[in-house]
Amino acid sequence: MREFWSSRVRSLTPYTPGEQPKDRKFIKLNTNENPYPPSPAVTRAIQAAAGEPLRLYPDPEGSALRRTLAGLYGLGEDQVFVGNGSDEVLAMCFQAFFEPGRTVLFPDVTYSFYPVYAGLYGLDWREVPLDEDFGLRVADYLGSEGGVVIANPNAPTGRALPLSDIRALAQGNPNCVVLVDEAYVDFGGESAVELVNQYPNLVVVQTMSKSRSLAGLRVGFALADANLIAALDTVKNSFNSYTLDRLALAGGQAALEDTDYFRQTTDRIIATRDRTARRLEALGFAVCDSRANFLFISHPEAPAKTLMDGLRQRGILVRWWDKPRIANHLRVSVGTDEDMDALCRALEELIG
Amino acid sequence: MREFWSSRVRSLTPYTPGEQPKDRKFIKLNTNENPYPPSPAVTRAIQAAAGEPLRLYPDPEGSALRRTLAGLYGLGEDQVFVGNGSDEVLAMCFQAFFEPGRTVLFPDVTYSFYPVYAGLYGLDWREVPLDEDFGLRVADYLGSEGGVVIANPNAPTGRALPLSDIRALAQGNPNCVVLVDEAYVDFGGESAVELVNQYPNLVVVQTMSKSRSLAGLRVGFALADANLIAALDTVKNSFNSYTLDRLALAGGQAALEDTDYFRQTTDRIIATRDRTARRLEALGFAVCDSRANFLFISHPEAPAKTLMDGLRQRGILVRWWDKPRIANHLRVSVGTDEDMDALCRALEELIG
Repeated sequence: MREFWSSRVRSLTPYTPGEQPKDRKFIKLNTNENPYPPSPAVTRAIQAAAGEPLRLYPDPEGSALRRTLAGLYGLGEDQVFVGNGSDEVLAMCFQAFFEPGRTVLFPDVTYSFYPVYAGLYGLDWREVPLDEDFGLRVADYLGSEGGVVIANPNAPTGRALPLSDIRALAQGNPNCVVLVDEAYVDFGGESAVELVNQYPNLVVVQTMSKSRSLAGLRVGFALADANLIAALDTVKNSFNSYTLDRLALAGGQAALEDTDYFRQTTDRIIATRDRTARRLEALGFAVCDSRANFLFISHPEAPAKTLMDGLRQRGILVRWWDKPRIANHLRVSVGTDEDMDALCRALEELIG
Repeated sequence: MREFWSSRVRSLTPYTPGEQPKDRKFIKLNTNENPYPPSPAVTRAIQAAAGEPLRLYPDPEGSALRRTLAGLYGLGEDQVFVGNGSDEVLAMCFQAFFEPGRTVLFPDVTYSFYPVYAGLYGLDWREVPLDEDFGLRVADYLGSEGGVVIANPNAPTGRALPLSDIRALAQGNPNCVVLVDEAYVDFGGESAVELVNQYPNLVVVQTMSKSRSLAGLRVGFALADANLIAALDTVKNSFNSYTLDRLALAGGQAALEDTDYFRQTTDRIIATRDRTARRLEALGFAVCDSRANFLFISHPEAPAKTLMDGLRQRGILVRWWDKPRIANHLRVSVGTDEDMDALCRALEELIG
């Protein structure tokens, strides 16, 4: 009935996250989670922060976490913003930098939360078609007055742009913010972090959900010129003074500090991804060149929906969208080698 | 310089939370935190949820926590919304239920985040003056077309409205949502939860930050008709699928289940509050009748700002606002008996 709903909220179609099954044990390759646990240092940090200190509010600035990020990326603390997962950080970027009436550009095949954010803040947007191999033509995004949003590597394709393309986007859009969503960058993409000091209109957003194995803890961050970070702080402090709880602040920092563990686990995932891609190609799949922790695949004979259903029956969850251009594709997160063996065996059965 | 800031965000003046000192050890009576640690069951639940499970996203619906709240308050799970502290829940209420161009009403002396939320969502609002004793006249808030927001007990005064007044507000505003912020209700106020099934326009918001000793964990919730909860879900799912991390979901639920601990600690705080109020009156303070975990006080001779500065020098933090009507008042959170003894001794010195 929607009585009492504001007109804006009445018009929204929310984002649908991948299924989190509660009943049955699946091999979960549907939400790009990391198959490895977080660093043991995270658990120790959380245990130290739990108990009595929870009666006190967290640091509203998240200063210690910001300092750690600043050190890691060679930036000032005032060039770092932290939030409750990169979803929240992206939402706040849409609100802070984009203006109703000025069209924001993003690809037609990309993270499907972008149009939802645009709707939430009453923005106009245009989806720019990727080429037929899901490649992005930089020329399509130059001279925008409203804003540009690029996932790099892109989701759900996994394809990555070289740093030179991001530079061209930042340089070619002097009148608007270029938002680069690097949720998956740690699996082989080139980060634009090093351009942040050169382009006052560039915002890089990352998350600890994927490469740091902390989807369950909700820590994301933005790296940008201090002027843009101040806008994000203004939004955050007008919405919720304390978006990160004490355990997320402590756990996130511990994860960042354990760089050895981070390299080992991301290297393993990259190796598993590349091995799995070769096996899937041998099964006849077309596999997008992925720099992420997932593979975007399609088969010339077996419909994606049928494969998804068959995998589910065999205890494996993958992601499929009933959407133009990608309705015959599956996005498969990279699990352990054992997970991917099970996937390949199941697909072999389903195709064979 | 604010280049690239959206015009809305450029116009905002964010909320300023009370100080969280990092350097020195203070007796912290400035942010209404609970002086007692959370239930030991919370720590156990957090330790069980930390580690390997953090690699997986949390339940985006927060179903287990919602079910626990529903059971506790005699409502259906679809009448419960959970969020990242009641600040986030309140923000989402402003966005879900209020409409630009339709004036939202709240008192002139109340939680100072309300006008900030209104600014964030481009709403019009009017501050309705409380009477000279900071009492609320229900008649001033009837027949609104835009919305009514009431903190009950009110902050920073601590004064509470009887249930009959909340009923009159819900009944007298059939065309808009009446939002009752019960952040402090567990310290002796009358909750409007029992009216939720009767009034489809009534939203009750509570928090675990105060009475459950979990300011550091960020868990708040709203109780209302399922239609209003669906609007909040729509906002949340268009902003951030997972606003509560796994540890907050687990810890929040454990806190709710330990009702004995909850009653013991809130009873202690109420007893300390009432004893402290009598002592402060004996020192010549005017003390608002408080049903919250703080006291709102003023002295006929000693200026509030001078007292605040003097207390700080003596290692005690309290809250003071440089605002009309309340610039000669202090808000003092209720700590342990020892904390309040130290406060009273320091005030005696400062006044004597």
